[in-house]
Amino acid sequence: MSTTKAYAAPAASIPLEPFTLERRTPGPHDVQIDILFCGVCHSDLHQIRDEWGGSIFPMVPGHEIVGRVAAVGDHVKNFKVGDLAGVGCMVDSCRECSSCKEGLEQYCETTGMVGTYNSREIGSGAPTYGGYSQQIVVDEKYTLKVSEKLDLARVAPLLCAGITTYSPLRQWKVGAGHRVAVMGLGGLGHMAVKFAAALGAEVTVLSTSPEKEADAKALGAHKFIVTKDKEQFKSVNNYFDFIINTISAQIDLGAYVSLLRLDGTMILLGVPTEAPQLHAFNLIAKRRRVAGSLIGGIAETQEMLDFCAEHNIMSDIEMIDIQHINEAYERMLKGDVKYRFVIDVASLN
Amino acid sequence: MSTTKAYAAPAASIPLEPFTLERRTPGPHDVQIDILFCGVCHSDLHQIRDEWGGSIFPMVPGHEIVGRVAAVGDHVKNFKVGDLAGVGCMVDSCRECSSCKEGLEQYCETTGMVGTYNSREIGSGAPTYGGYSQQIVVDEKYTLKVSEKLDLARVAPLLCAGITTYSPLRQWKVGAGHRVAVMGLGGLGHMAVKFAAALGAEVTVLSTSPEKEADAKALGAHKFIVTKDKEQFKSVNNYFDFIINTISAQIDLGAYVSLLRLDGTMILLGVPTEAPQLHAFNLIAKRRRVAGSLIGGIAETQEMLDFCAEHNIMSDIEMIDIQHINEAYERMLKGDVKYRFVIDVASLN
Repeated sequence: MSTTKAYAAPAASIPLEPFTLERRTPGPHDVQIDILFCGVCHSDLHQIRDEWGGSIFPMVPGHEIVGRVAAVGDHVKNFKVGDLAGVGCMVDSCRECSSCKEGLEQYCETTGMVGTYNSREIGSGAPTYGGYSQQIVVDEKYTLKVSEKLDLARVAPLLCAGITTYSPLRQWKVGAGHRVAVMGLGGLGHMAVKFAAALGAEVTVLSTSPEKEADAKALGAHKFIVTKDKEQFKSVNNYFDFIINTISAQIDLGAYVSLLRLDGTMILLGVPTEAPQLHAFNLIAKRRRVAGSLIGGIAETQEMLDFCAEHNIMSDIEMIDIQHINEAYERMLKGDVKYRFVIDVASLN
Repeated sequence: MSTTKAYAAPAASIPLEPFTLERRTPGPHDVQIDILFCGVCHSDLHQIRDEWGGSIFPMVPGHEIVGRVAAVGDHVKNFKVGDLAGVGCMVDSCRECSSCKEGLEQYCETTGMVGTYNSREIGSGAPTYGGYSQQIVVDEKYTLKVSEKLDLARVAPLLCAGITTYSPLRQWKVGAGHRVAVMGLGGLGHMAVKFAAALGAEVTVLSTSPEKEADAKALGAHKFIVTKDKEQFKSVNNYFDFIINTISAQIDLGAYVSLLRLDGTMILLGVPTEAPQLHAFNLIAKRRRVAGSLIGGIAETQEMLDFCAEHNIMSDIEMIDIQHINEAYERMLKGDVKYRFVIDVASLN
């Protein structure tokens, strides 16, 4: 066991505060990682507020983790001390069901995936604690290789925001000749723009804020539509092959679905608290589809990290010390961040 | 011009009554058809009640038409006098847009498809009148070949109920190894059961009525789930690859979406008046999809009719004289028909 400094929410909706936890001694297949950076995901906030129910406290959030390997178990094959390593949203799953065997551990059919935090280890039932901490111990099967080529702080958000947007683009085979819209220019949305552009698609950002146009184009968007401008909105009716919808606020979903052309697909990544209404005729009239997607499997996460190293893709971030995490949450809620907060974990020392 | 006896709704929600209309003299590409049978579709009722808006009165409904060719224009190539012929939901479209060129005339991008009734001809703007009539004149491009092998009255509903269920099953490549559920055992649902079974899938009917089990199995279903029985409903959680949803009543859509396994798809064919709510998490948790589908193109409708001739597939019907059409609507509204009313058009003589 090793004692690790961390920040934790002691109970639902209570500000995060310093916390100390014990990490297990690395087993034969484990990698012990000294955490360098950890991204701040909107789902961290959902869970410390217990908005999805079943939260486990005290909770140490954080599932966008980049660090360096400090120790490895005897049977670890793919990592050695000093290597860079990443940890995303999960640290285990049953490993035996059809989903796990297909590399879709996030859809594990038996135990479900074990979340990096706010979850329980298979077997011991011990709560898992995330990356707002100095150190983490993870089975190498759920540990990712990180390239030395990129800015590590900017790599951290790829472990959740990156894979969450990359996976559906790959599943739906998005590429050259496709028109892709991105709804919501936040942590997820800005990565969707980068990936869709890198895959060769024509990318349009749909936004309520005209002032975001320059930023959207700097990220790689080809077009920008101010959704409050009725003429502009109408101009992209029946236009898109894909819409990546990262919005978790209440919106008129049907109006956006109508922007899909024949056989177009809207991919939902955000979870509005109240279920939106969806009129069947909107889908029937143009054989449209609405689909969901949840992060990505371990192999695909590695593929995404390799793709990013090859194409020099990273998240745009604002670095913070962990002592400012509660303030960062307040700003994130207002959309006041371009586009992801990342904790400099050295601030825990 | 030729005078044709028909039944028409004089105005919204007024009972149908005898009506006389003029059919155009067949042009060079036209086929004139003596109608033998016409199916009664739920959309006939929606439109005579003006429930979708924009209805044109007087309205002669009917788009499940089977008859015999009485005359052909000089340039008609594929039909001769005495041939059987069918007419479905559309009688024209722009013929030039990408959808029309792909054989997806139902999604015509410029004029939209011209409905067999309650629509307007391209050019003249004259209203179209449907199959509750003795005769119809249609361009041969929108006329279907009908096999002499089948019972013609039972073929009529294939022109709408048939293609509406066949098309999505083909689009989504449903076949052996797939688990397909059918929601709603009416005109569409009973055809979905027959087609999905003929394509080799395992078919389950989801129904609120335990007494429908024997009928469902007679139609070809392998399993039957009483949806009001919580244990039975739970037993098919995460189970289906596809759900064909023909229900236009208000239901808890999310509960049914949860019956889809990983990457499963619900295909919406029914249009509830009030848009149902769909919680994003239901889709995200298992990468599920909800899609729509609208009838089928002309080439695919022909493929479906040929498939039916080959596999001896027909609709299960109750034949009526046209004088009983208003009473038939009342019964259809209550679901009191197995499974489609078909008008014996000889009753118009």
